[in-house]
Order: sequence, then structure tokens, then C-alpha cells
Amino acid sequence: MKNSLSLMFVASALVAAEPSGFTEKYKDPADKLIAAALSDQEGLQRLQYLCDRIGNRLSGSASLERAITWAADEMKKAGLENVQTPAVKVPHWIRGKESAVMLAPVEKPLTMIGLGMSVGTPKDGVAADVVVADDFDQLTALGRDNVAGKIVLFNPEWKGYGQTVQYRTSGASRAAQLGAVAVLVRSMTGHSLQTPHTGAMIYAEGVVKIPAAALSVEDAAMIERLVRSGVPVRVRLSMEAHQAADADSHNVIGEIRGREKPDEVVVLGGHIDSWDIGQGANDDGSGIIATLQAVALIKKLGLQPRRTIRVVFWVNEENGTAGGRAYRAMLGDAMSKHVAAIEMDGGAEKPLGFGFGSGGQERAGTRRRTRNPAPSAAAFARVVEIGKLLQGIGGGVISPGGDEADTAPLLAEGVPGLAVRTVGTHYFDWHHTDADSFDKIVPREFQENVAALAVMTYVLADMPETLAEMK
Amino acid sequence: MKNSLSLMFVASALVAAEPSGFTEKYKDPADKLIAAALSDQEGLQRLQYLCDRIGNRLSGSASLERAITWAADEMKKAGLENVQTPAVKVPHWIRGKESAVMLAPVEKPLTMIGLGMSVGTPKDGVAADVVVADDFDQLTALGRDNVAGKIVLFNPEWKGYGQTVQYRTSGASRAAQLGAVAVLVRSMTGHSLQTPHTGAMIYAEGVVKIPAAALSVEDAAMIERLVRSGVPVRVRLSMEAHQAADADSHNVIGEIRGREKPDEVVVLGGHIDSWDIGQGANDDGSGIIATLQAVALIKKLGLQPRRTIRVVFWVNEENGTAGGRAYRAMLGDAMSKHVAAIEMDGGAEKPLGFGFGSGGQERAGTRRRTRNPAPSAAAFARVVEIGKLLQGIGGGVISPGGDEADTAPLLAEGVPGLAVRTVGTHYFDWHHTDADSFDKIVPREFQENVAALAVMTYVLADMPETLAEMK
Repeated sequence: MKNSLSLMFVASALVAAEPSGFTEKYKDPADKLIAAALSDQEGLQRLQYLCDRIGNRLSGSASLERAITWAADEMKKAGLENVQTPAVKVPHWIRGKESAVMLAPVEKPLTMIGLGMSVGTPKDGVAADVVVADDFDQLTALGRDNVAGKIVLFNPEWKGYGQTVQYRTSGASRAAQLGAVAVLVRSMTGHSLQTPHTGAMIYAEGVVKIPAAALSVEDAAMIERLVRSGVPVRVRLSMEAHQAADADSHNVIGEIRGREKPDEVVVLGGHIDSWDIGQGANDDGSGIIATLQAVALIKKLGLQPRRTIRVVFWVNEENGTAGGRAYRAMLGDAMSKHVAAIEMDGGAEKPLGFGFGSGGQERAGTRRRTRNPAPSAAAFARVVEIGKLLQGIGGGVISPGGDEADTAPLLAEGVPGLAVRTVGTHYFDWHHTDADSFDKIVPREFQENVAALAVMTYVLADMPETLAEMK
Repeated sequence: MKNSLSLMFVASALVAAEPSGFTEKYKDPADKLIAAALSDQEGLQRLQYLCDRIGNRLSGSASLERAITWAADEMKKAGLENVQTPAVKVPHWIRGKESAVMLAPVEKPLTMIGLGMSVGTPKDGVAADVVVADDFDQLTALGRDNVAGKIVLFNPEWKGYGQTVQYRTSGASRAAQLGAVAVLVRSMTGHSLQTPHTGAMIYAEGVVKIPAAALSVEDAAMIERLVRSGVPVRVRLSMEAHQAADADSHNVIGEIRGREKPDEVVVLGGHIDSWDIGQGANDDGSGIIATLQAVALIKKLGLQPRRTIRVVFWVNEENGTAGGRAYRAMLGDAMSKHVAAIEMDGGAEKPLGFGFGSGGQERAGTRRRTRNPAPSAAAFARVVEIGKLLQGIGGGVISPGGDEADTAPLLAEGVPGLAVRTVGTHYFDWHHTDADSFDKIVPREFQENVAALAVMTYVLADMPETLAEMK
């Protein structure tokens, strides 16, 4: 999920108070979808099953393949057509055993978790003194003389995910360029109860690969306190992490075929993989199940739209985005018939609305720039109109910024993109941790997300013209 | 710490708005003490050293003895007289390795921590199906037929520590009476990020001792969801926990001798031991260091009071209260000269004031009833007057309820008792966890606690009459 909340209030000012003819036309099906979503228990039961009976599901794991088989069955049970699980090769990173211990000034186990895609350490670990940098400028100021042979701890102030995650993704190679032997990074969060956060890191080409792990906020702070007060800190980091051969996996796809223009498609979904801890409840179990349930309710209400609605559970968002790229490749020229791409990957807290149609923002961790042209004023106004149908649940505010990792390949080639936006109050407390579990799902808030997705998806698939046609 | 906040607002109404002659008399030294406390860095440095350089300190551990030696030195550095470390025998419970794993319906490691004083399991652990009880009534309703041979999970709603902790302290024996082979208890907290909370449990006499561990809130909720939906859950619990022979330890004591009545004593302190995780920063590092620093500032300002002020760092509060009992025994008849006993054991969040003088409340976990008579109206009014001196920092509200675990033996025999009260917003997020670390200390709030203790202690030690003399 990306943060575009800062722009939200600009956009909310565009929402007019009076209903238009367009809004009136869709009020009846929208109200029915909202009522169905708010009383629906099936979606919650599906999410609970995914969390409790299958659990986390990293690319390459057996549990991911169980989730994929189960998801295809659930799509069939929901009455979707053309259910398929096209093959996708995914990276297979294996964590293995891992630990970190402070050796001096006192011996103390550290609360750590290896970063995804990191290399491991030698069998006996890497033991070295620690130098601390709060940002890359401080690393540069330390210089090779102080960094070579050391473990670098990045302990950046939390300025939100978008601004801070660079230390997780790029810290290892930045430190390795100055001769560091390993990297520790403060977990990417603003709130911690000794809670380590994993997530992907990326090695720069041509730079020695050194092992990288996150520390809890508490332990990063402790080491910084000691080092800043002149006390040498020595740490041993031990990680068995390694890459196995790429694994066979799958996207999961199901449809409601359109009644008039079945070759035109509104695609919506989230990612079915997760990290290898917790239950992947908010990241992104809630996203895939909310999108499935939105479409299941459209089907239950007998609302066959003009165009095809397609649900996709993309695979491997967390450490490769192979699913999103494979889906784009699978489409070939048919991509031009995608009239909108909607992703939910920011958790199921209370929905605010949708980001719509931004382009050109750098995605943390992937370095891919999407070049989606800004939507026309008429298209933006139309999405705002659709949002009015959600005013009753407060989930219809439209703000700039509609790209997510799995839809990015589509948006980069011009497909109008939407991304679910929530209040995001606690998302980064749980993100990529063992605490991302079903208990964090507030039933009513999950149901409101289903409602918002159902209405937005149905209207985009049914309205006479497409967003791209609105100049 | 006990919760008496519900009574606080009754008492706060007793605080008159106008300063009295008594308050005026002590305004100058009080203001000087407050100013000194709010600019003091030495207390924070002492607490940081205790946390980062010594760390946690369970009874029987080498780190506790290091803390005791260091603490006595710090008392001497602060200029205290008669510094001594009288011997106290303490229980020596050793956690050893421990783990819990859900074996069915899916294999998943559980986030657990053994409860203090629990017995261990056989080497291969205890594996059994789990039955869930939200309270003791549900356990009774399950009955021996459903409980015998099973692991009981207590997953009580969090109703605050005082009401909920009974499942941690007494759950094992209650379940063992129905034939359970082990007990799991939801961690004692209202907020969790997969954060297990330890704490003492107590075996009832004549009941088979079964192993007992806390689960994270998340994992307790997951097991309850599975069991309530009819899915059998099987868990293996493995604990090496055991009791070693009682260990040699010590209370730590230092004084400012009184200028007129040195045999009359105001005692204040906290407990120097902690659980064997985290840093014991709020429980109770902040308590002992705040009391020491309060007295250190009285000394620095040259304020020698009429009576003696004595700081005591009691040992073994967490799993035995041997230090509090040994201190009472050491006093002998001199106890009658204790004019007040003040304890700080609720963390160093923003202080609200003091509990004063309640009696007869059952202490969770210890089953000791203190029989302290309620203070006279005149004594209560006097403490309220002293509280007025703290209005500038908001820490002077006096409420009923002044006993804590270490002062309880004194209060039970009539010594007027006071206990520091704070807002307690996050205390039970951190309590008995690895997250109870120095980063949770807000410097200004710690300093305000020092100020409140310094003023209350100094005035009680200096005022012409004692609280007991005020009929």
C-alpha cells in the first residue's frame, strides 16, 4: 500500500453534495450491494479459514499452493466462471534458522527477523562491532574507515513507510559499498512491542551481497543509546537464509462474464502470497477475500453488468511481483480491453474511498516507475460520482493515486487504476509481522470494504461509457 | 501496581482550591525540589545504565546481584548514609528452554512464555487436545469429563489487571483439579502485537502441579476461534522450568538521617528485581531510580528534614515478596517508628498523585490481606494539602488506596502507606514483557515522578506532627 492520504482532502473537496442523474441511476443496485455486504458473514468466514486453516503463504511454500487450490475452489463456490490458475514461476527464498545476539557490553538476545531475499551468514554467524547511522548522510559521513568490517545499524526516524522503507530495501548495498559485513535495520513501523517487521530487500548490481535483518524498534534504540554514549557494541548475526530454485506457482482468476461487452474487463484483486510469519490477514488476505466477496455478492444479487468483472489473486507480490507481470504477459493485446484495474492491498481498516489514476510514482522496493497518464477531468468526476453512492458508509472519497504493485504493469500501459484507501491507523503496526492475524480484522470494517469494492466495481463494469472514453 | 483509579475522582473533589498556611510554609522547598527534578538528568542516566548495562534481574540471577552491588554504589554516590545490603533468601526459579506448537489442525509455532514459578514438562513436552474456558464458570461447566487429560486454555476478556489476573495466578490449580495436564492463559493485557506476558502463578496446596504458560492474545484468540467452530486443536507444550535451591540476595538501603527525630522514618522505594525478559524499565526500574533520585535531590539541595528518610530497593517482589517481608522482620520493634511507607511500582508514566492509606484489599497473586486502618480525616486532609504543592505538575491528586506488595507488611501493621499513581495508559501493554525497556520512559514524565516523590517524602519527613498523630 502506498500513502496518498496527504492529497485526500484536496480531492474530497471535489465531492459535490447533491446527487446527479448518474448517481440516481445506480442508487438502487448500490444500496442493495451495500446492504448485502454489511450483513454478509461468508466473506469473514472465508478470510478466517484462510488465516486459521492455511496461514501464512510465502512464495515457494506448500501453504501458498494450498491457498491457491482453496481459492480456486472458493471462486467456483461463489459462482464465478472461467476459474483458472495459470502457472507463474516465483522466487523461492527460504529463511531457515536465524538469530542475533548482543555480545558486548552485555550478552543479550536481540529481537530480529531476517529481511526477505537476504543472503545468509556463514554457519557460525557474523560477529562484529556495530556502527549506527540514522540516515544515508550519516553513513556517508562515517566513511569506509569506520564502516569496513563492521555491522551497520540503520536506525532511521519513522517518517511513514514511503519515506523510510529505503533503509530496508537499499541499506545493505549502501553499507556494503563501504565494506560493511552485515546490516541491521530498525523495523519499519511507528509502534512496537518488541515486534520485528520483515519485508523485501534488494541487492544493487555489482555490490557484494551482505546479510540483512530487521531489529525491533526497542533493540535498535538500545544499541543506538549505547553507541552514542561511547560504549562499544558487538553483535553476532546468524542467518541460514538462502534462495532455492524458482518454484511453480499460480495466479488465481475467476469472472462474471459481461452481458453486452464481455471482452471488456474490470479487473480487481489483491495478492495471495504473504510473508512467512503471522497469517497475512491484512496483508493481503483481507484484500483478496474482500474483492472475491464483492464479486460474489454481485453474482448473488443477479447483477450481471455490461462488461466482464474479473477477480485475480496475484501471486508473489511480496518478493518479486511475478504474478502481476505474468498477468500482464498473459493478456497480450487483450490488455487494451481492460477498462479499469482495482487493487486492495492496504488492509481492511475502515475504508475512506479510492485512489484513482496517478502515475509516475516510484514504488518502494521495486524501482518501477508507472507512467500512467493522469485521468481526464471527466473521468475523475465520474469516479467521484460513483463514490457518492458510498457516502452512507463513508467509503467514497476519491483521491489521486491509484497504483499498487500488482496492477502497476497494467497502469504503466494506460489502464485506469484504482486502489482502496482506508484510515490506515494501525496497518503499519502489523505489516509484515507475526501480529498480522485475523483478530485484527474488525468485521464491520471488512464488510464496508466489501461494500465499497462491490459498488465501484459493478458501476465501472456497467456504465455505458468507459473511463478512457471520457475526455 | 493496583488499580484504584475508580476512586480517584471522589478524592480529587476533596482538594481545596486555596493554599493553606501549611502549604505556604513548604512552598519554597517544594518549588526548589520540583525545579531540580524537572532539570535533572542524573536519574535518567542511572535508569538507562540499569536497563542497558545490567538489564533484567530475576531473583537468583547473576544480573540481579550486579544490580544490587551497583545500586548500593549509586546510593553512596548520591551522598546517602548507612548504605547497607542486608541478606535476603529468595526463590530461584529457572525458565530454561520453552516452546509451544499447535500440532493440529495445522502445525504452527505459538507465541508463549512460561509463567513464573511453574513446573516444567517432561522432556518431550505435553501434547494434548485443547479445551477453552473464558472464565472459571465455563471451566466448571466443562467438567472433569471434558477437561481430564486435556490442556485448558483460559481466554478471559481483559477487564483490567485486578479482575483478570486470577486466571494467571490460579488457573493451573483450578484446571488440575479437573484433571487437566497443562494450562495456557491469554496474556494479561488489553493490547498486543504478538507480545507474551509472563508473571507469577501459584499452586494451590494439595493439587497436582501442572505446567502453565501464557499465550499471546493473538494465539489465544486463534485457538478459541478454531475450537468454537468445532475444529479440534492439539498443542504440544515444552518447558524446562524448575526451581533451584533458594539463592542469597539482598535488599538495598540508604538514608538521609533526620536532624531532630532520626529514629522516626519515612521509607520509600520500589523493587529491584524484575522478570527475566526485557529490561524491567517500568517494572520497576523507574520506581527504584525515581525514589533514589528524589532523595538524592533532597540531599543536593541541603534539605535535611526533621525525620530520617530511608530509600529501600526491595528484592523478589515478582515471585515471592521475600524482600518486603525481610525488611519488616529486620525492623523488629523499630517498625513502630515508621511514620509513612511510600512505594512506586506502577511505571513512570505521567503522575497523577498518590494513593493513600486504604486497607483490606486482597492483593492479586499473594492472597495477603492488608489490614491497614483507614487514615483519619485529618491525616487525609494533610496529605491532600501536601498534594497541592504538586499542582504545578499535575501530580498531587490524593486517592484512597496506598498499599503495594513490598510495603504491605508494614501497612498491615498500621504504618500509613502511600503509592504513586500515574495515568497508567500503557503500563499493561509492557508489563512483564520483553517490551518493558528504556525507550518507553518519557524523560519529562519520569522527572515529574521524581518531583512528586521528592516533595511528598520531604514534607512527610519534616512536618511537625506525623500522620498517625493527626486524629
